[in-house]
Amino acid sequence: MRNVKMTISYKGTAYHGFQRQNNALSVQNVTEDVLSRLCGEGISVNGCSRTDAGVHAREFVLSFNTSSEIPCRNLVRGMNSLLPDDIAVRECEDVPPDFHARYSCTGKEYVYRIYCGAAPDPFLHGLALWYPYGADADRMNEAAALFEGTHDFSAFRGSLGADKDPVRTVYRSMTARDGDIITFTVSGNGFLYNMVRIMTGTLLYVSEGKLSPADITDIIESRQRRRAGVTAPPEGLYLNRVFY
Amino acid sequence: MRNVKMTISYKGTAYHGFQRQNNALSVQNVTEDVLSRLCGEGISVNGCSRTDAGVHAREFVLSFNTSSEIPCRNLVRGMNSLLPDDIAVRECEDVPPDFHARYSCTGKEYVYRIYCGAAPDPFLHGLALWYPYGADADRMNEAAALFEGTHDFSAFRGSLGADKDPVRTVYRSMTARDGDIITFTVSGNGFLYNMVRIMTGTLLYVSEGKLSPADITDIIESRQRRRAGVTAPPEGLYLNRVFY
Repeated sequence: MRNVKMTISYKGTAYHGFQRQNNALSVQNVTEDVLSRLCGEGISVNGCSRTDAGVHAREFVLSFNTSSEIPCRNLVRGMNSLLPDDIAVRECEDVPPDFHARYSCTGKEYVYRIYCGAAPDPFLHGLALWYPYGADADRMNEAAALFEGTHDFSAFRGSLGADKDPVRTVYRSMTARDGDIITFTVSGNGFLYNMVRIMTGTLLYVSEGKLSPADITDIIESRQRRRAGVTAPPEGLYLNRVFY
Repeated sequence: MRNVKMTISYKGTAYHGFQRQNNALSVQNVTEDVLSRLCGEGISVNGCSRTDAGVHAREFVLSFNTSSEIPCRNLVRGMNSLLPDDIAVRECEDVPPDFHARYSCTGKEYVYRIYCGAAPDPFLHGLALWYPYGADADRMNEAAALFEGTHDFSAFRGSLGADKDPVRTVYRSMTARDGDIITFTVSGNGFLYNMVRIMTGTLLYVSEGKLSPADITDIIESRQRRRAGVTAPPEGLYLNRVFY
């Protein structure tokens, strides 16, 4: 049996997240179906993370076992000819048997895109949060930096989260403005359920003056979800990089 | 009667171009329908140009007469709440009676986007030409510059073109590479039918070595369509700016 690592990217708009679902279309459903067809055997993949409905991935890593002898190069071509236009295989390689897309992962980088233009932009619909209320990227950046470090992030965990340990290390957290787009980029060794979306909602509270940048530290220390901002909608969120 | 100038932008994927069609959905159909509903009277718009099926517009200008007294500010809001997500109104202003979106136009800028990555990109599907064959942006740029000036562009006109005068002035013509994206930007006082798409196809011939950059001048002088390259597909083309 081979163990294969495959990097895909997908536009999440049409999917109920990555994880296989019985009653809704997921990226895993589609990917496993195409892979099984190609390899001529039922294949189950492990994904590097769950992602929510409507969330996108520029880089998402899968691993799977197969007895197929199709070379990786041809797996990429075959997959890309069979997959729908909103999912693509970027890379594929054979890896040692102990590699696991989720458990071997040492960190991830997420990006949240906020479009601040006064009028809607047809090219960003479903691909960024439209926020035409005037956002202050410098103030958001000042707040974002306070997420860095090792903290108990209970205040930034969605109520459906199942992780037992709420401690995570954020390596880098920053916002930057480019024209009408504000990008919040955050990397860390792992993220709790909805963590990046709640961080984003909280940064928007800072931008709106509902919170000061320094409040971030207090909110983290409080470990109280109600102290943080709302959960920002999924369409602005991208899993951007996965580290091993 | 007021005369109103309205700037819209649209993703052309779902439409058979701008111009009203009897048996297919066009941007004009949708825009006039929404505008007529909003103003409570039948409204006909004049567009700054036709665009082909699948071509996009970051900036496209309409003009129309109306007896409605709805202020421009509210027309923008009303339109954006009623239009589908792939069309948006960016700006709107009252203009003198002699303004006409098409006849008052003094120039346009088009952009053609070419995605050169080895794997398909779900975020660029329908929004750029996927060209994974290795493109040479420097060589293309050398050729592109030769389009500048006032020329008879008959060699770069699609066979369905109805314009009597094939002479156009190209102000600026250049290609630039940013990562995996090559952008061909061309502005001029006007463009013949399919002209930018044929220019793009010809620049790709130059990249492939089928033509040398200097051949551009010969092809223009020949006025023979068969000497130029193929018509590049619509999905990479954007009407980017309209000048008055």
